[in-house]
Amino acid sequence: MTPQHTLPAIAHPDRLFPADPDVRAVARELFALVEHAPILSPHGHVDPDLLADDVPFPDAAALFVTPDHYVTRLLHANGTGLDRLRPSPQASARDIWRAFCASWPAFAGTASGYWIACELHHVLGVGQPSARDADALFDEIAAVLGRADYRPRSLFRRFGVEVLATTDDPLDPLTPHARLAATPQAPLGGRVIPTFRPDRYLAAGTPAWSAAVDELVATAGDGHDGYAGYLAALANRRAHFIAHGAVSADHGMVTPATLELDPAQARALFDRLRAAPAPDRDPADVAAFGQHMLFEMARMSVDDGLVMTLHPGIHRNHHRPTLAAYGPDTGHDIPVRTEFTRGLQPLLSRFGTEPGFHLVLFTTDETTFSRELAPLAGFYPSVYLGAPWWFLDSPYAIRRFREAVTETAGFSRSSGFVDDTRAFLSIPVRHDAARRVEAGVLARLVTEHRITGAQAAEIIVDLVDEAPRRVFKLPARAGA
Amino acid sequence: MTPQHTLPAIAHPDRLFPADPDVRAVARELFALVEHAPILSPHGHVDPDLLADDVPFPDAAALFVTPDHYVTRLLHANGTGLDRLRPSPQASARDIWRAFCASWPAFAGTASGYWIACELHHVLGVGQPSARDADALFDEIAAVLGRADYRPRSLFRRFGVEVLATTDDPLDPLTPHARLAATPQAPLGGRVIPTFRPDRYLAAGTPAWSAAVDELVATAGDGHDGYAGYLAALANRRAHFIAHGAVSADHGMVTPATLELDPAQARALFDRLRAAPAPDRDPADVAAFGQHMLFEMARMSVDDGLVMTLHPGIHRNHHRPTLAAYGPDTGHDIPVRTEFTRGLQPLLSRFGTEPGFHLVLFTTDETTFSRELAPLAGFYPSVYLGAPWWFLDSPYAIRRFREAVTETAGFSRSSGFVDDTRAFLSIPVRHDAARRVEAGVLARLVTEHRITGAQAAEIIVDLVDEAPRRVFKLPARAGA
Amino acid sequence: MTPQHTLPAIAHPDRLFPADPDVRAVARELFALVEHAPILSPHGHVDPDLLADDVPFPDAAALFVTPDHYVTRLLHANGTGLDRLRPSPQASARDIWRAFCASWPAFAGTASGYWIACELHHVLGVGQPSARDADALFDEIAAVLGRADYRPRSLFRRFGVEVLATTDDPLDPLTPHARLAATPQAPLGGRVIPTFRPDRYLAAGTPAWSAAVDELVATAGDGHDGYAGYLAALANRRAHFIAHGAVSADHGMVTPATLELDPAQARALFDRLRAAPAPDRDPADVAAFGQHMLFEMARMSVDDGLVMTLHPGIHRNHHRPTLAAYGPDTGHDIPVRTEFTRGLQPLLSRFGTEPGFHLVLFTTDETTFSRELAPLAGFYPSVYLGAPWWFLDSPYAIRRFREAVTETAGFSRSSGFVDDTRAFLSIPVRHDAARRVEAGVLARLVTEHRITGAQAAEIIVDLVDEAPRRVFKLPARAGA
Repeated sequence: MTPQHTLPAIAHPDRLFPADPDVRAVARELFALVEHAPILSPHGHVDPDLLADDVPFPDAAALFVTPDHYVTRLLHANGTGLDRLRPSPQASARDIWRAFCASWPAFAGTASGYWIACELHHVLGVGQPSARDADALFDEIAAVLGRADYRPRSLFRRFGVEVLATTDDPLDPLTPHARLAATPQAPLGGRVIPTFRPDRYLAAGTPAWSAAVDELVATAGDGHDGYAGYLAALANRRAHFIAHGAVSADHGMVTPATLELDPAQARALFDRLRAAPAPDRDPADVAAFGQHMLFEMARMSVDDGLVMTLHPGIHRNHHRPTLAAYGPDTGHDIPVRTEFTRGLQPLLSRFGTEPGFHLVLFTTDETTFSRELAPLAGFYPSVYLGAPWWFLDSPYAIRRFREAVTETAGFSRSSGFVDDTRAFLSIPVRHDAARRVEAGVLARLVTEHRITGAQAAEIIVDLVDEAPRRVFKLPARAGA
Repeated sequence: MTPQHTLPAIAHPDRLFPADPDVRAVARELFALVEHAPILSPHGHVDPDLLADDVPFPDAAALFVTPDHYVTRLLHANGTGLDRLRPSPQASARDIWRAFCASWPAFAGTASGYWIACELHHVLGVGQPSARDADALFDEIAAVLGRADYRPRSLFRRFGVEVLATTDDPLDPLTPHARLAATPQAPLGGRVIPTFRPDRYLAAGTPAWSAAVDELVATAGDGHDGYAGYLAALANRRAHFIAHGAVSADHGMVTPATLELDPAQARALFDRLRAAPAPDRDPADVAAFGQHMLFEMARMSVDDGLVMTLHPGIHRNHHRPTLAAYGPDTGHDIPVRTEFTRGLQPLLSRFGTEPGFHLVLFTTDETTFSRELAPLAGFYPSVYLGAPWWFLDSPYAIRRFREAVTETAGFSRSSGFVDDTRAFLSIPVRHDAARRVEAGVLARLVTEHRITGAQAAEIIVDLVDEAPRRVFKLPARAGA
Repeated sequence: MTPQHTLPAIAHPDRLFPADPDVRAVARELFALVEHAPILSPHGHVDPDLLADDVPFPDAAALFVTPDHYVTRLLHANGTGLDRLRPSPQASARDIWRAFCASWPAFAGTASGYWIACELHHVLGVGQPSARDADALFDEIAAVLGRADYRPRSLFRRFGVEVLATTDDPLDPLTPHARLAATPQAPLGGRVIPTFRPDRYLAAGTPAWSAAVDELVATAGDGHDGYAGYLAALANRRAHFIAHGAVSADHGMVTPATLELDPAQARALFDRLRAAPAPDRDPADVAAFGQHMLFEMARMSVDDGLVMTLHPGIHRNHHRPTLAAYGPDTGHDIPVRTEFTRGLQPLLSRFGTEPGFHLVLFTTDETTFSRELAPLAGFYPSVYLGAPWWFLDSPYAIRRFREAVTETAGFSRSSGFVDDTRAFLSIPVRHDAARRVEAGVLARLVTEHRITGAQAAEIIVDLVDEAPRRVFKLPARAGA
């Protein structure tokens, strides 16, 4: 047992609660109402094979460092080359872990640092990283990971995950999802569902688009080709996903602009883009096609009921040499200013009041919280405020989000927390953190006499346990 | 009497004060200095007939729901169609009130929810909405509204309104204002003044512009026609407003850009726009004309002394089907990013240091608070920081405003609170809330030893009682 | 001695610490660790002659008002014409001081007000401004300024300045720096170093550009002319600065965009711009040249090791009549929206991982803190978060900066505080304030159990005493 005097800060049961004793006391009570609520994770990036195969996590580096580009980017910024953070003959798992531990002080105050500290202490029950004891901690973690009750399915059950959504390519056969669905519930205690993410079939500016469309149409186009086959194939694959439990379709783009084209225009645009090699495609055509297809995706969501989620505003692969050497998702995706009001106007004017249509908006541009997103969600029954995302899913940023949107949109217009992570072990920790921050935000409203404690209690249960079900069309909670 | 244990949160005398006991104690003292100061409301949207006619408010729905698109929008977002929120054979006032009460939990934490809760408790002395007791509360409110001391003029007097500005069309005859001015002061205890709002005569992009200009020139153009008659008519109507007590001219536009044209250019532009039907007008001409006329409005303000106020940055009527079915001001006006620094440069370079010229800048884009507005108000003697507006006139947003602008512009460069409301009953509640928040902001500065309590006491009196008089050229306070 | 009951707020030892007693107690302890750390000022605008000549400060107006456009702008906004704020036959130093004292209440809550209050109390040991006692205070200050221990060098030593960087024209002979370097250390106790600021040689849009380039090439072009001579001269002058102790090159521009041109393109662009008089230069050429030269400056920094700092996003000289009458730097430089992600992509894709390259990004657009700057600094080893700048170097704004960037970038990616001032007396006060705010930010993280007190203690020492040395390549601290 770690002796008291070396306990990390995050061992404290009051972590993340506001410092003021009166506010903190209320926060503590509110948090207790949801601390053990099941985890609903309707958007994320866990590899479904992890649970389908249930093989033990290999080591500390593979668990905490290598796959998490939110971690490797900060190591890179602090001077550790990415070559030293990928397993290779020159970099063993232990070497990578040592490099991470040596840079651990750089994570103080960061979201990643908070999560990893909590994972080590609260999930694995081991110590905290330090340059001196890196090896001992590596071994200590290895010993824990070797235990049967720390294999992925056991953790899934112990974490109390009721629903976990993955993110998948439209042509993915969803085999692990099928295998997991065929598994009796008992060992897992919850469901793993796919999410339809068609970006690469819609982004006509990339060299890979043509081949992707070829394969899509050939696989699922019902024998049609051209634009008709393309639309049919997208609809067919959505149906395939729905049959495997999917509840949402997710869309990434730099600018969330939309455009309504009539079918003839759209077909001509598609044909023009298909006829040209990537470098010759007119950028205006590429942009128009992306905007039009976002509009079409909304139409399909209205038809088939998949919740539509948008994750816009990221300039991907900022550092070309790193992209060339290490591929995408290596820590240099940087946000840009994002505009929703004008961009979504065509889509919302057409589908914004369609019964059953749900559009969840995420952003990494905080300026849109109060200016655009809360007013949109405060009028359109289809629009929901996505949880703070990516760089913003951290305690202070979540609090800023709530304080920016609530006075305009209240608490009823938000999606609930979405962990959006590929770091499996961080899931319970992220939900725990979000619940603590929500409790703190509500406690402040109570202490400033804007709502009663009874109202706050209802709201926090709704935010944690009911909003995600309602917004993402998940089953009602047991007993509700 | 509502028993203690069911009192709403907002019954508490410390509502909206910061939670920290030391800060709260200071806030309480500061608030006491201005709690009963007269209400100065130099910008708003109350219907002057309300006071001229002094007819009783009809019912709870008409008082709290139907006319307030800030309320109906959130009901709409939560699933109540706007058809169910307008009196009709299918929707009685009682039906509308029931729909509102059923959705009341959605207002927790919102600005509207706070105001309505306070209006019910502090102004009407009745209970809070609930789905179960909607009918009883409807009747209870009806009983109160039937009393003579709850008719508009009695409330006006009881609220302590010293000045209430309405917002009016330049061709409005201002009959209710004249009737009210002819009323002895005693029953009202304050003045109702008009505000000149010429948007529809300046917005050359709308189909209605031509007819509006025709009417304006015919009515007030001194017999001139064309551009000369147009300018003369605007100046004449401003004089008419001033004769009826107006102190300001208000301007709405998407982009607060300005442009100086020489008279020949301006005349040619005007003639070109007048000659074309709306769909054929060149958008660049429309934009240039709007920017030029904003510049001309500043020139007229320099000449006649009307305070110039700007309310830019709103994309109006976002959802076209709702506009078609229910008209404008139905809850789907959504803010967009706004730019002041470059846009106002021509206007300010020309008029920014003119003696007596006052330009009050409002925004719904919080990013401009510290970046543009505070620096502009911190140099130009004519520029004042408008109070947080629209979606931002809420406790947290007001606090963010103050904390964003004060370190650059101090307290002397702001307009004081402007309620900007058409909800008459909310006026005392909004001013009360703003005063509480200002007290909290100042209390924090005191507690962090940046200013003394004596300084804070002077500042809060200035903000509440002197700044609006100074900025909006209202009479000095009694005894001052 | 000022009696207790008239002490200004800022006399309190707990000034700027958060109000909550628990947080404050931690903040106090953390601040004590750095309260007396040496002052490292790697970017600022103090006139080096001040220290080279060591002549006494003339009077209160010259010390606090005349040269500080952050002060004069607010006096101007409050109705004092700039003609009354410059020494002239009509405005003696005493007149200026009286005008300032009369407007002193307008500075309550501002950054300038805080600094001046602290300078008067903590540095000079005199009273606070008031309209009534302006003359007495003027005389009291004069008496202090006449003392030998209040001459610039004595203050420099007493302030504990270890390094003070000035900002200088590339063709500046750096005579005062050479004189100071030749001075024995003892009387000064620290170093005064120059900073290379080449803006006027890179801004091809200004009428003065051609003559500036002529002089640059003639002076330092190694006999070459044209583009080759221009680049050689810039490199040579950088070397001259380095020889005089410079550690950084500073760059101001409206938009921090960059562009890589091949040498032939660049030469042709340069020649085209050189051939045209200013009004005839193509704005696109001017923009491209500025962007290209920023790219080239990065290349030179990679070569010669000068830290590159950017100060973008200011619309200079907003009010043309004031510029015409009083010149630049007269209080009407207003920030505009700024974009870094796309603009810096060419530069960072090329130089972002070059060993030893340091790029420090400053901004007056707070929206970029969490959206662009923290993610960039969280990946690129070369990118550092500049301290909150200009309108943002105030207590609340520094706190907003930290809370916006830390969860993404931690504490290790920031430059440390930079006072950036020409107001010599404010240097210790600004550093003191920044240290207090950092202590408060860290204390909150401790009290919310995100980091331990021991971690916070290491971080604050790093932020104050080690980060500036590391980022600006200054000597390690004594004993480290």
